[in-house]
Amino acid sequence: MPLEDCHVGILGLGLMGGSLGGALIRGNLSGLRVLGADLDERACAGALEKACIHQAVSAEELAALSDILILAVPPRHMESASRTMRPFASQKLKAVFDLGSVKGEPGEKLEEIWGSRYVGLHPMAGKEVGGIAQAEPELFRGALCFLVPRRHSDPLAVELGREMIRALGAVCSEISPEEHDLLVAYGSHLPMITAAALSMAAGRKSREFPGIPRAVAGGFRDATRTASGMPWLGADVLRYNKKALREAVRECITVMEAFLEASPEEGEALFQEAAGWRRELVEERQTRW
Amino acid sequence: MPLEDCHVGILGLGLMGGSLGGALIRGNLSGLRVLGADLDERACAGALEKACIHQAVSAEELAALSDILILAVPPRHMESASRTMRPFASQKLKAVFDLGSVKGEPGEKLEEIWGSRYVGLHPMAGKEVGGIAQAEPELFRGALCFLVPRRHSDPLAVELGREMIRALGAVCSEISPEEHDLLVAYGSHLPMITAAALSMAAGRKSREFPGIPRAVAGGFRDATRTASGMPWLGADVLRYNKKALREAVRECITVMEAFLEASPEEGEALFQEAAGWRRELVEERQTRW
Repeated sequence: MPLEDCHVGILGLGLMGGSLGGALIRGNLSGLRVLGADLDERACAGALEKACIHQAVSAEELAALSDILILAVPPRHMESASRTMRPFASQKLKAVFDLGSVKGEPGEKLEEIWGSRYVGLHPMAGKEVGGIAQAEPELFRGALCFLVPRRHSDPLAVELGREMIRALGAVCSEISPEEHDLLVAYGSHLPMITAAALSMAAGRKSREFPGIPRAVAGGFRDATRTASGMPWLGADVLRYNKKALREAVRECITVMEAFLEASPEEGEALFQEAAGWRRELVEERQTRW
Repeated sequence: MPLEDCHVGILGLGLMGGSLGGALIRGNLSGLRVLGADLDERACAGALEKACIHQAVSAEELAALSDILILAVPPRHMESASRTMRPFASQKLKAVFDLGSVKGEPGEKLEEIWGSRYVGLHPMAGKEVGGIAQAEPELFRGALCFLVPRRHSDPLAVELGREMIRALGAVCSEISPEEHDLLVAYGSHLPMITAAALSMAAGRKSREFPGIPRAVAGGFRDATRTASGMPWLGADVLRYNKKALREAVRECITVMEAFLEASPEEGEALFQEAAGWRRELVEERQTRW
C-alpha cells in the first residue's frame, strides 16, 4: 500500500507537524490528502494558510478519517491524546507514527493503545523556536529520520513509515527503541543539558559580575543555542529519557573533571582527542549513513 | 601620540595577528606601517600576499623597529619570545600588547619583561581554525575587545590600545586582569570545555554504539563547534586560567547534576530559567556594551 490515495492525519500543527504536512503536500503524491487537528485554532488557520494541511478537522474526525495518523504533539500529551482518539479510529487506519524524541517508555504506552499499527518515527531536524509560523516543508530534507518499529509492529505500518520518510526527502534508519533512546541521549539530549547548564552557570554568575555578557562571543552563542528552545521539550526529554540521559550526563561530567585534573600535556591530549571525535561525529557522519 | 606614523610590529602571523595587521593596513592611517615576524616563512609569505603586513622582518628587527609591538603567538610562547626580543627593543617602543586569552599570570610575566609599556588586549572574536590562510581584516569589526591595563601601565600605552581597538572597528572595554579572566572563564573558556567533553563522551560511546553519529544533528554540531579548535589553545587556557575556569566548570557541573535530580516540574523551571539567561547573555548583550 503506497502513500498515494492515503488520508494522512496530523495531530498537532506546530513546527514538526506543520513541516511534515507541508512536505507531503509538496511531494505531489497522487490522491494524498493531509488533514490536521490542533486545539489551537490559530495553529489550524496557520497550517491552512501555509498549505501544510488540506483541511482542518477535530481530533475525533482525524482518527475516523485517517489511513495514517501522525502524533506531533508534545510527548507529555501523546498518551492522553491517543486515548481520546482511539475509540474513533476506523478500520482503514493502517499506521500510527509519533514524532516524539524518546521511544522507549512512551512507545510502550502508544503500542498499548494503538496495537501493531504503532511505529515510532523521529526526524533528526528541528529548530529552537516552535510553532506553525516556523514550519518549513524543507525542514527534513536530507536529514536522518529514525524509524523505530516495536516487536509487534505490523510490517505494513513499518513499510508506510519508510515511504513517509522517503516522501519527506529524509534518510531512513531503522533502530530498536532502546538503541534509539541511547543514541539520542548522546547526540541530541546531552547537548540540550550542557547548553542549559552553560547558560545558567554564566547567567547566575552575571548577577555578581555584570560584565559577563561582554565575554560572550561566538563559541558561547553556538554552544548554548538549544538552550533557547522550548522548556517543555527539554523537560519531556529529561522525564522520558532519564536512564540513558543520566548515563550520558555522568560521562560528560567525568570528562569535564578530567580536564580539570589534567596536566598541561594531558590537557592538550584531551583536546586533541575531542577534536578527532568531533570530526568523526559531525564532519564525517554523512558517510556513515 | 596617535597611531598615524607608527610602526606596528606583529609577532606571530596566524589568524589573530594576520587579521589585526590586515585591519590596520586597510584602515588607511597616514604613515602607519605594519611589520610582521613569524618563525614560519610560509606565514610571512602568506601575510605579505594577503596584505596583512607591509614587510616581514626577524623578531629582533621587529623589536628594534616598532613603536607598538603586538604579541600574537600562542600563550605558552609569549614569555620566552618576549625575553628574546626585549634586549633589541629601542627607546621608540611605546606599547606592547598581547592578544592572549588569559591576562592574570601571563600578564604579570609580560609586565616583568616589558615594564609599564605592557597592556593586555583581547579581541572577543576568532575561529576554530587558525593560521594566516584564515586571517580576515574584518574579523574584529563590531566585536568587543578587552583592554587590560595593569596597575603600572603607562597611560600613553593604554591610550594607544584604545586607538588600536578603534582602528580595528571593535568596541573597547577596559577591565582589570582578574575580572577579565573570570569573565572569559564563563563566557569563552567554559564553552570550550563543554564542547570538548560532549565530543569526547559521545565519541567514546560510539565505539560501543557505532550508530551515535546518526543521532548527531544541529544541536550537537553547534554545541561542539569549538571542540574542532586548536588543541594548544584549549591547553593554554586550561593552564593559565585554571583557577577561574575550575570554578566555572564546577558550577556548570552543579547545574547539570541539578537537571538529573529535578522532578519534571523542576526540570521545566530550570530549562525556563536557562532560556531566560541565554536571551539576556546572547541576544541582548549588544545593548549592554
